[in-house]
Amino acid sequence: MKVEYINPFVEASQNIIRQTTGLDPVLGSIYTKDIPKKGEHVAVLIGITGSIQGTVIMSFKKPLACKIVSFMLGGMPVPELDEIAKSAIAELCNMILGNTASIFSQKDIGVDITPPTVLTGENMQFSPAKSVTVCVPLEFEDGDTMDIDIIHKVS
Amino acid sequence: MKVEYINPFVEASQNIIRQTTGLDPVLGSIYTKDIPKKGEHVAVLIGITGSIQGTVIMSFKKPLACKIVSFMLGGMPVPELDEIAKSAIAELCNMILGNTASIFSQKDIGVDITPPTVLTGENMQFSPAKSVTVCVPLEFEDGDTMDIDIIHKVS
Repeated sequence: MKVEYINPFVEASQNIIRQTTGLDPVLGSIYTKDIPKKGEHVAVLIGITGSIQGTVIMSFKKPLACKIVSFMLGGMPVPELDEIAKSAIAELCNMILGNTASIFSQKDIGVDITPPTVLTGENMQFSPAKSVTVCVPLEFEDGDTMDIDIIHKVS
Repeated sequence: MKVEYINPFVEASQNIIRQTTGLDPVLGSIYTKDIPKKGEHVAVLIGITGSIQGTVIMSFKKPLACKIVSFMLGGMPVPELDEIAKSAIAELCNMILGNTASIFSQKDIGVDITPPTVLTGENMQFSPAKSVTVCVPLEFEDGDTMDIDIIHKVS
């Protein structure tokens, strides 16, 4: 995957997280990930079509997801990932990918995104077919990490 | 969701399963499903953009997934859902949605699909945001059911 295809994801995710939560995650080392992937506790999936075809999986451990939602809600305690909290985290990821698509469109690269699906479970394993996964890790204070996996089709 | 938007999924899934496995599943009663959804053991996710925006989740219990793959491979025993078997089930679902998209295109309804992602895990729960889920159940002999959940955005 060309680096100019990765930058919009980085830019959008850092901007949107900063704007909606006030948190300021630092970009870790971007790497290509082996598949199948062991999922974290919470994953938000958004499909991409157009110039990039694939799926973006944003995954968090439950405490980080709760913390992000708490900051989105102005500091309200979020002890559990209930339906409202899941809806908030879905909206955050939707805003990140929507913003990513806008940045691509400014570069005349057309991509379309699906609505988000939040997935929780245990021992989740993703096996994308004929794809390469680029992982963009965002590191929060306290050592929490949100992984943005860009799974894109190999043509 | 209009009924003319559901029929292409039904037609494509029955045709492709018949062609690739020789099995002939019967259409059960189509219904609207509550969300969040408890996933089965194996789920294949494919995103849709264009005139329909959403995600299609095809879910099976593990024995049915193995049986379908076995029939796809001409009767070869498939005791476990290893990477090859997952790849086969992903391809089946990709063909079903590809065929669905072709039928839509013949009706001048433009939809684009993402590549498939196979998901396995326990206690999986899908929480699609602001969506309606229409479930198309395909019933195989022996009482096995494959659910095709069409999760589409409510505008």
